[in-house]
Parts: sequence; structure tokens; C-alpha cells
Amino acid sequence: MLGGMQDWPLLVWKLIDHAALHHGSREIVTARVEGGESRSNWREVRERALKVAQGLSRLGVRTGDRAATLAWNTQRHVECWYGISGMGAVAHTVNPRLFEEQIVYIINHAGDRVLFFDLTFVPLVERIAPKLNTVEHYVLMTGREHVPETSIPDLLAYEDLIAASDGDFEWANVDELTPAGLCYTSGTTGNPKGVLYTHRSNVLHTFGANSADALGLTSAATILPVVPMYHANAWGVPYAAAAAGAKLVMGGAHFDAPTLHGLIMREGVTLTAAVPTVWLAMLQHLEKSGQGMGELKRVVIGGSAVPRSMIVDFKEKYDVTVCHAWGMTEMSPLGTLGSLSAAALEKTQQEQFDIQTKQGRAIFGVEMKIVDDNGDEMPRDGKAFGHLMVRGPWVVREYYAGDGGHVLDADGWFDTGDVATIDPSGYMQITDRAKDVIKSGGEWISSIELENEAVGHAAVAEAAVIGLPHPKWDERPLLIVVRKPDTNPSKQDLLDHLEGRVAKWWMPNDVVFVDEIPHTATGKIQKLTLRQQFKDYRFPDAA
Amino acid sequence: MLGGMQDWPLLVWKLIDHAALHHGSREIVTARVEGGESRSNWREVRERALKVAQGLSRLGVRTGDRAATLAWNTQRHVECWYGISGMGAVAHTVNPRLFEEQIVYIINHAGDRVLFFDLTFVPLVERIAPKLNTVEHYVLMTGREHVPETSIPDLLAYEDLIAASDGDFEWANVDELTPAGLCYTSGTTGNPKGVLYTHRSNVLHTFGANSADALGLTSAATILPVVPMYHANAWGVPYAAAAAGAKLVMGGAHFDAPTLHGLIMREGVTLTAAVPTVWLAMLQHLEKSGQGMGELKRVVIGGSAVPRSMIVDFKEKYDVTVCHAWGMTEMSPLGTLGSLSAAALEKTQQEQFDIQTKQGRAIFGVEMKIVDDNGDEMPRDGKAFGHLMVRGPWVVREYYAGDGGHVLDADGWFDTGDVATIDPSGYMQITDRAKDVIKSGGEWISSIELENEAVGHAAVAEAAVIGLPHPKWDERPLLIVVRKPDTNPSKQDLLDHLEGRVAKWWMPNDVVFVDEIPHTATGKIQKLTLRQQFKDYRFPDAA
Ligand SMILES: Nc1ncnc2c1ncn2[C@@H]1O[C@H](COP(=O)(O)OP(=O)(O)OP(=O)(O)O)[C@@H](O)[C@H]1O
Ligand SMILES: Nc1ncnc2c1ncn2[C@@H]1O[C@H](COP(=O)(O)OP(=O)(O)OP(=O)(O)O)[C@@H](O)[C@H]1O
Ligand SMILES: [Mg+2]
Ligand SMILES: [Mg+2]
Repeated sequence: MLGGMQDWPLLVWKLIDHAALHHGSREIVTARVEGGESRSNWREVRERALKVAQGLSRLGVRTGDRAATLAWNTQRHVECWYGISGMGAVAHTVNPRLFEEQIVYIINHAGDRVLFFDLTFVPLVERIAPKLNTVEHYVLMTGREHVPETSIPDLLAYEDLIAASDGDFEWANVDELTPAGLCYTSGTTGNPKGVLYTHRSNVLHTFGANSADALGLTSAATILPVVPMYHANAWGVPYAAAAAGAKLVMGGAHFDAPTLHGLIMREGVTLTAAVPTVWLAMLQHLEKSGQGMGELKRVVIGGSAVPRSMIVDFKEKYDVTVCHAWGMTEMSPLGTLGSLSAAALEKTQQEQFDIQTKQGRAIFGVEMKIVDDNGDEMPRDGKAFGHLMVRGPWVVREYYAGDGGHVLDADGWFDTGDVATIDPSGYMQITDRAKDVIKSGGEWISSIELENEAVGHAAVAEAAVIGLPHPKWDERPLLIVVRKPDTNPSKQDLLDHLEGRVAKWWMPNDVVFVDEIPHTATGKIQKLTLRQQFKDYRFPDAA
Repeated sequence: MLGGMQDWPLLVWKLIDHAALHHGSREIVTARVEGGESRSNWREVRERALKVAQGLSRLGVRTGDRAATLAWNTQRHVECWYGISGMGAVAHTVNPRLFEEQIVYIINHAGDRVLFFDLTFVPLVERIAPKLNTVEHYVLMTGREHVPETSIPDLLAYEDLIAASDGDFEWANVDELTPAGLCYTSGTTGNPKGVLYTHRSNVLHTFGANSADALGLTSAATILPVVPMYHANAWGVPYAAAAAGAKLVMGGAHFDAPTLHGLIMREGVTLTAAVPTVWLAMLQHLEKSGQGMGELKRVVIGGSAVPRSMIVDFKEKYDVTVCHAWGMTEMSPLGTLGSLSAAALEKTQQEQFDIQTKQGRAIFGVEMKIVDDNGDEMPRDGKAFGHLMVRGPWVVREYYAGDGGHVLDADGWFDTGDVATIDPSGYMQITDRAKDVIKSGGEWISSIELENEAVGHAAVAEAAVIGLPHPKWDERPLLIVVRKPDTNPSKQDLLDHLEGRVAKWWMPNDVVFVDEIPHTATGKIQKLTLRQQFKDYRFPDAA
């Protein structure tokens, strides 16, 4: 028997059609790459996206073709997303912060036929263009007046591409399983692998993201996604904002606290999304400048664990609620969010802070469990930690072009590579990446928990914990610390600080001070590099 | 090219699995039909629903079979919903307030094999059972100790059905287009027609309902859906509450203000959903008793137009925000919600009240336009009114068993039968049902707007406006009024009140006072009956 409901495929362009029609005058403000700010709205952005689609079609781009962007968060980047997938092609966001060879690898691997890029990246593209085997058209995301002398072949100015389109074009009525987007993992292990999102997965992710306990965007919200569109789709914000009709504030090439703060204040930003390092800088900036946070009510933070001290500072100093988020490129990316449950809301402020340090609860649509090394499910008791497995309509099934082979187990679960606990109320907490977990005498020690406690010390700017070989225990934790300017804590100061805050057998066997901790292109601590850096190190008690 | 995301069909039972796993201890409280209250939670309700599914399977129910409920809002009714559709069958909610012949017609037409019913309906079922051609099993939704002597054949006690199941059962892994639910329109014109919801349409509707500008349920919310599950799926609340992990408060057979108010206060209800008549009684009750509204923050009201005075009273007297909602059985049912836009939030309180009287803006997933009699689209200027057409994944494609033939136009639009305006900010306002609109000299007069203005008069309990034949103008409006107790307004008082509030040529040609206005089974004014009642009436100026 057939159901009696309409066949209405879940297509990405329906998001912007909705925004244009019902929230047409809601603004999109951009700190432009050329300097200054541009103001537009959903109606205009849709019109221009349609012209991008028409332009691509003119260039010979067809359903399923890939078109890449090397671009900041801007209005034009949003137009590209909707324009590319709206005409049936695949919007491939390339992370410009990767090594050049990786960028070349990714673009060739994806077989991108068009490359949209920001002015910032002209020198980069000049260098790599000769190595890009499939790119036929280069589009510089600016007006003709800004196009420099360059060796880049077949270069088009974005505004010319748009100007040549009359807008008499229709979005592609493709099947909802048609690919719409492509994003490569940053490739901290091996070659980057591509995640090929579909129209269906993106629209369902949007619904999930907009549920009230997740991003929960409303049409009255003003959101600044500091997280870049090339980093796990800016957590889906450009889609979610369209579905809700929210105002979108885009920081362009700016990630510095003063610029972001200026945007937050001037544009009345109510919600932002960014990785912890951005907020570390912001909190320091506010501390110095003595400014407040304006209309900002909530910051969604993820990508790395949020230290408790950050949650406390935001609340106590600025009355801003931190909502922890966890996800990954392979999950579109949102998996869990740390909104407070009814039970949590009845606890004390301090207890709430504890809960907020957890990565949060699964959005409906994300199934989650933890398993041991044999794949057996572990209890949801908030203590046991195991491999975090996920399933859902916006979770990867296989990487682009079959790279990495089968990545799901027999029951369809994807191994996130993260290690976590899940408590009885559903709050998940990442204790480590599987590859970073410290195995001491057959038991696991959470490097993230140690790091979180360490940064709670007033003199610690950043901390990393890695496991290093130990003759007796296999591995033991080494605490690596960057001191705050003008402070000089000793090893013992830090160990004293940790004492009582973590289990006795978790106590680092040593502390070392460094000037800098290496980070990945997405702002995460590069533990692999750290382990290499300290490969000749020996613990004092292991001589 | 294939996308790389998981195949995760949208199935209704995934909602309750999610609730049980992540919000397992969140409560479901019911004012029981047997008296007293029961407290359960999502974990238990899921377990019991699974046992219902297992029981049905034992009874021989198979994928696609229909099982009906004649039941109030209770925990058991929720279990039936999930149990029935969770095993692949179709949960068919029958409205017990319909005429007996209609109930018989509907159950036979649906071919229901099982009928679940509440104690309240034993006499009804005794009377109709001999006429039900397809029902093989009758399940009385109570424990064996409450089962009365009865002539109903093959009668099972619900708790026995559950007790005989060990729970070792798996939800049906059906295609997402498999039917999950069935609801008949109340049939104010012709025979009732069935809307056959699919798993997909119900899950997508849940996502839409839970978006922050719609119901926006969070896990911290406590919702009392006064609107019955047999009336357009209680606006999807039993699904939305599971997806969000909200607490669910169910009023059972009670719709009276004192009982509902008691539940709101005792259970800390934060959000409710009901038709205007429920709130009319509630406001009168509060006025008399001098009580407040406790934790209640927002009431979602729909099914009929909400008079402005109700919105004002809720806000000014109880600090409760009214959110107008519009939808219909054919739309699962939610179409629009009246949450305030950013622009609206900057207006004065009085201007906001005006906006709140509109039926609201479309949820993403609902496409909406107004057209004239020729099907040509009309402007979204807030003035032009035309036939309201909708499209979307939770909108009907055709009625059950093909009744009513093709109901979509060539472009897939469904005619709601409502007449509306849409303003530039996307707010839709219902001005009438197409069949109730008053055609005066070639122009349309909105009966709903006249009614809304009339109930603004302090002495008016209820008002209805119908169009009656007029020799010069074809039709002119007649205002029919129920006076509040102990008041005695004259015709002229009412006309004076309308003067200036509505266009001059909209002024009713006469006013009549009646003791009662007839209502449909879903609480709406029965204009058809009114027109019959006044078919011999002649306007004073039409003699
Ligand atoms: N809130 C969070 N707390 C702790 N870790 C987080 C959080 N959010 C994300 N992560 C980490 O980030 C990972 C996802 O990051 P992303 O997909 O951006 O690329 P990556 O995993 O860093 O790169 P690659 O997969 O190439 O190594 C998660 O698997 C998790 O380890
Ligand atoms: N907020 C509202 N304001 C005005 N009218 C509303 C509102 N919400 C719903 N309605 C009316 O209710 C209708 C949907 O009601 P429902 O599906 O419950 O059955 P019905 O239309 O009354 O019955 P039938 O279709 O059998 O005549 C809408 O088409 C609209 O006319
Ligand atoms: Mg990864
Ligand atoms: Mg109807």
C-alpha cells in the first residue's frame, strides 16, 4: 500500500527559496575580502545564486560535476554553495590552510572542473594551477576592478559570471540522493578523504541543526559562524540560517578577536559558532578592553574540547551561555549539543558548568553508542569509556571514490575514532581520540580530561597531554604546557594543581614547558607531531 | 554518481527509540480515564509500545494493516501509536465526537482489523460493533479489572495484550514511504476522507514542528497537548515530544478548564497546544478564580482563528505568549506558526498583537502561495486575498483509496480550501474558508475578520458571520452573536463597535442574537448549519 503524502524531495535549494520568499529582507552582512562591509539579504543572495547556477551551466558544468571553493565566509561563498548544488553540481569546499600538496591532491582527487577562490588566494592558485589536472575554469570571487595581473589561465571575475546571467534559470530537480557537497577530512592520518554529502543529508542535517536543543535558529536570531565554511560546512549554519530566516554575519578573512567583536556588537549577533581557540583570544581581548558582549546570548563551541574555565568565564563575566558541540566532517558535522536538560537546569550553577563541559546529547537523527575493543556495547553510566560509534542520515557511509574501503561495521555503525563516555541522561563526553588515548597498565587515561584540568591553572595558556612509552606501565602521560605571558609556574605548581582533580594514577609523570603547541589546519592540537617531537624524551622514573 | 551518506530511513519508531535512550526518565503523566493519574516515562512507554507491537503481530496484524484507536490523550494512546506503526501497521485515529454513522463509515472504509478504545467508549462500541465489517479484535485500553460486562465480541484487555508479550521483538524495518498513520477529515462537506501519513511524512513533520520558530520543543519543555490525538495527530506533539525528549502531560478525557489548569500548575507545563474555545473557557476560569498560569510561557493556538482579545489577555494578565498556528489534517497538520520575526520584535506591544492575530509564517518544508479563481498567483502584499495553496513533504497527495480523485493541480499544489492574505514578511492570515467567504458585488468580505472584531466587544461571548443572499449585492454579511451572561448589548451597540474597525462596505447588514452557535466535532463554527438555520432570513433592506 502506498502512502498518500506528496513526493517533495529534500533539495538544498529549497532552503534558500524558502528564505528568499519568507524572510527575503533578512540580512547577510559580510566583512569583505576587498575591505569594508557588504550588506545583502536572502532575496538578493538567492537571485545571485541562481545566476551563479546559470553561469555554471553556461560553462558546461553538469549534474554531478564538482566545483570547488577556496574561500572565506562571505556572501559570495554562500551564493556559490547554493548556486553549485542548486544546478545539480557538487560544492566542494577546500580548506586553504592545508599544505599546498594536500590542496593539489584534494582538487585533483575530486576532479573539480571549476575553482572559485578569494583574492587572498591568488598567489596560492598561481602556484598550484599548473598542477591542477581537471580545473577548466578559475573564478576569482570579486568584481573585475579587483582582478590583478596574474598567470592563472581562463580566469573569470565572479561578478562578470553573474552579470552575464539574466536569472532566467531553474534549480535542478534532481533526486534527493544526488550529491550536493564535498568536504575532505583534514587528513591528520594519511591522505585526506572526501565526504560526499547529498541533498537529502544536508537538508536533514539542517532540520536537526535547527531543532531547539541544537542550534535552534529562529528568524529573530543573528548568527556569526566564525567556523569557516571550508571546515565541516561551517557546522551547517549557511543552510540552517536559510531554513530559519536568520540574519547571517560573515567574518570574511578575519578571525581576530577585535574584528569579530566589532561585528558582534555592531550587527547585534545573538549566537556564534567557533572552535575554542577563537574564544580564548576573545576572552583575553575582552579582559583587556573591558568591553561586553552586546546582544550575544549563546556561543556554540566545538571542534575541540571546551575547557570548563571558558564556560565559567563566559557565564560569569558576560552572561553568555556556552553550548558545547561535537561533530566531525563525516557527520555533516553535528552530532551532539550540550543544551541543559530539565534535570540539569535544577542543579547548582557549578554542577551545570560540569555538565556543560561534556560534549552533549545526540540530536534526533544521530544514533550513538560506545563499544569496547571487541565491538561489544559498553554501559551508559558516565564512567566506562569506549569507541564512539554513530549512525544516521547525515553520517558518512563511504568516502569519496571508495577511499578507505568499507568504513561501516556489519550493523551500519561508523567508528568516529573518538573515545567517550555516555552518562545515563544521554550526555556524551569525549575523553580522547582513540589514537591519542594513553594506555597505562592495561587501563585508559583520558588526555583531554588532563588537558582540561591543566588549563584551569591561572598561568596556563595551553596544555597538551600525550602518552609516552614507560618500561613499567607501557605508557604514561606527559603534560606539555605553554605558559601565559609574564607567568612562571613550576612543574610542581602544575602537579599540585592537578592533585585531587584527577585520579591518582592519572597524574602526569612529568611536565615540560614549550613556547608553542602545534595545531592542525582546523585548529586542533597536533598530537602526532608532539609525539614525534618528544620521541627521544624519557620519563625521570624510567631512566 | 552516488552520494556517500548512510541510508537511514525516516521511521516513526526511531523517535521513541531516541527518547527512550537519551531521555529515558523524562515523564509522561496522564489523567487516567479510570480516574487518578499515572506517571511513566519514555523508556517505559517505549518498552510497552514494543509489547503492543508484539501483541499485534501475535494477533496476525501485518505490514500495511490498519488498527484504529477511539481514545483520549493518554500514555496508552501514545503506546498504541508507536506500537502500531512500529510493527509496520497503520495507526488510525478515529474522532469519537463524530456522528455514529460517520464513525462506522470511517472504520469500515479504512478496513481496520483492530480497534483500541477507551472505557468511555464501551457503550458506543457496543452499539456500532455489529456494523463494523472488518474489525477482528477489540482492545479495551485498560486493565482486566476494569473490563465491564459487555456484548463486544473478541474483547481483549490492553494490559493483557501487553502482559502476554515478553518484549523480545524488533521494530519493522520498512521503507520510509510505508504508511504509518491515518486520519479522516471531519467531513463537514460530504463523506470524511482519509489522509494516509507515511513514516517519512511524520518524521519530517516532526523535524519541522521542532524547529525553534515552530513548536520548538526542548528536552527541558513540558508540553500539554490539549488538542486530541484524534484531531490531526494532536498537531504532532506525541512525535515532537519524543524527538526532543520533552515531558508530556496528557489530559485524558478532560477538557475542562479546572482540570487542565490543575495539570498545568502541578506538572509545571511550559507549553500547551489547543483550539481557541479551550482557552476561552480557561481565561474565564482564571478570571473567576484569580489564579495564575505557573510555569506556562507559551500557548500554541490553532484550528480556528484566535481573536486578538485572547492574545492580549494572555499576555497582559498572565505574561503568556500566544503563538498562533494554522494547519489541517491534510498537512499532518502544521503549516504556519506565528512566532515573531526580528522586525516584529522591534514594534510596539500593540503592533505585535496585530501580527500575532495573523496565522503566521510557513515552516521550512511548507510551500505556500495564494491564487485567484483562475489559479494565477496573487501578490504577497498583505492585502490581496486568494485561495491558499500548499506543497510539501507532509502535505497530502491523494486521499485514502483514491477518494476525491486528483486533489493536486498540475504543479503539485494542494488547495487548502482556505482563503488568505500573505504579507511581505511572510505572515499569512486566513480571511475565510473558500466556502464561507461572502461575495458582495463581486468583491470578497472576510467573515473571520468580522468575527474577530465582533468578539472584541466586551459583551460578546461568540460571534459568527455568514453571507446571505441580497437582491442588490448578491450576498451581504449577517452577524450572529451569543451574548455573555448578564449582558444585553443591542444591535446598534455592536454595529457602533464595528464602525471604523472594518471597511464601510464590510459592515454587516444586520445582527441577530442566538443562544448558541453550532460547532463541528473539532470545535469549529458550523457555518453550513448556520446558513441552513437562516435560509429563510431576509435582510431588513432586502424586503
Ligand atoms: N567538542 C569537542 N570536544 C572534543 N573533541 C571534539 C569536539 N568536536 C570535535 N572534536 C574532535 O574533532 C574531530 C572531528 O574533526 P574534523 O572532522 O574537523 O577533522 P579531524 O578529525 O580533525 O581531521 P582528520 O579526520 O583528518 O584527522 C572529532 O572526531 C573529535 O575528535
Ligand atoms: N489558526 C487558524 N485560524 C483560522 N482557521 C484555522 C486555523 N487553523 C486551522 N484552521 C481551519 O481549520 C481547517 C483545518 O481543520 P481540520 O483539518 O481539523 O478539519 P476541517 O477542515 O475542519 O474538516 P473538513 O475538512 O472535514 O471540513 C483549515 O483548513 C482552516 O480552515
Ligand atoms: Mg576525523
Ligand atoms: Mg478541511
